[in-house]
Amino acid sequence: MVNLGVLVSGSGSNLQAIIDNIEAGRVDANIKIVISNVPDVYALERAKKHGIPSRVIPHRGLKREEYDQKLVEALRDQGVELVVLAGFMRIITPVLLRAFPLRVINIHPALLPAFPGTHVWQTQIDYGVKFAGCTVHFVDEGTDTGPIIIQAVVPVYDDDTADTLNARILKQEHKIYSQAIQMYAEGRLEVQGHRVLAKGMPKAPDSFMINPPAKILE
Amino acid sequence: MVNLGVLVSGSGSNLQAIIDNIEAGRVDANIKIVISNVPDVYALERAKKHGIPSRVIPHRGLKREEYDQKLVEALRDQGVELVVLAGFMRIITPVLLRAFPLRVINIHPALLPAFPGTHVWQTQIDYGVKFAGCTVHFVDEGTDTGPIIIQAVVPVYDDDTADTLNARILKQEHKIYSQAIQMYAEGRLEVQGHRVLAKGMPKAPDSFMINPPAKILE
Repeated sequence: MVNLGVLVSGSGSNLQAIIDNIEAGRVDANIKIVISNVPDVYALERAKKHGIPSRVIPHRGLKREEYDQKLVEALRDQGVELVVLAGFMRIITPVLLRAFPLRVINIHPALLPAFPGTHVWQTQIDYGVKFAGCTVHFVDEGTDTGPIIIQAVVPVYDDDTADTLNARILKQEHKIYSQAIQMYAEGRLEVQGHRVLAKGMPKAPDSFMINPPAKILE
Repeated sequence: MVNLGVLVSGSGSNLQAIIDNIEAGRVDANIKIVISNVPDVYALERAKKHGIPSRVIPHRGLKREEYDQKLVEALRDQGVELVVLAGFMRIITPVLLRAFPLRVINIHPALLPAFPGTHVWQTQIDYGVKFAGCTVHFVDEGTDTGPIIIQAVVPVYDDDTADTLNARILKQEHKIYSQAIQMYAEGRLEVQGHRVLAKGMPKAPDSFMINPPAKILE
């Protein structure tokens, strides 16, 4: 059983997926606190509905490091072990990372290291990639550069818009974020250099996807 | 029926796959010439075995542009329409690209735009990506930056080496390079900005892959 602190700035659909998976017994974790830097966001409603303590810690007027120090205190107060960023729209500083070394995780809607940053759905469409996906990674001091825990991949279609691609990716986000937390809870994650090995996990099937779909299979 | 010129520098396993798919009637193309910048490579043997004309055009002592001018002449002599780079270890200049606009294609053993350049198998393993793959793209003046025609994706395993990953990717390369040529031959490729649309192709299945494999699927 791992104690989570979930940081949000918006609607919190990944938070909801984690709550649902915990309540269904699929994730051995306990959300000790949901913290938002923005008041009145829907993620706070979600926490309330499920009886999860929440706080607003506004960032206005604070330096990044000062803000992160407040986060560290609030998280430690609740005995948080793993910090889960769920649409938290703030840049994290070493103040938080050093307090929770290899214990801050994030989810990103692209197949990192491709397409870091924000608003990546349209960027991926415009680039013309045939596959997109999402990535759960340990947060380090770069932007979306930390060691990768788990990824999911989906096709991109010629008629996709940012919205349709976002929806396709989000469906996978809701699974892999919970899966990453569960792997952490089971003590399976072993960081070697920039790699994250998943001890004792079965191998993914030796499968493939091709897009556009190949008729030639030899 | 499209006339191909295939440029090689080494063993030519992708050349072999294309030859096999043409001979099996799966690709409506005709290899008019195989050109190597290196003498005595196995790709030349392969051409010979299948009765395909080949030439060695050595690059020594020539500027890149001078070399490409020689290539252009040799390709035009044979009525080549589409230039296929198959392990051709030379940087292409605008001399070739302007003579064959959007008619030079390459295959790269990574999910571009991630991991351009050479020796990318170990780089991908060391980065810790959970998926790798290969990309056929139109060649432009950058390194592996041109518009993407088709991609294939495969999992990366914790116990992979550069060799095992290379083998897994290569299996897909052999399919998608022929598929890309066939889509070109069928007149399906429509370049819009940096995107390549595949007119009239069926959609790839709305599928996904997760690695490490998720037990949580909701």
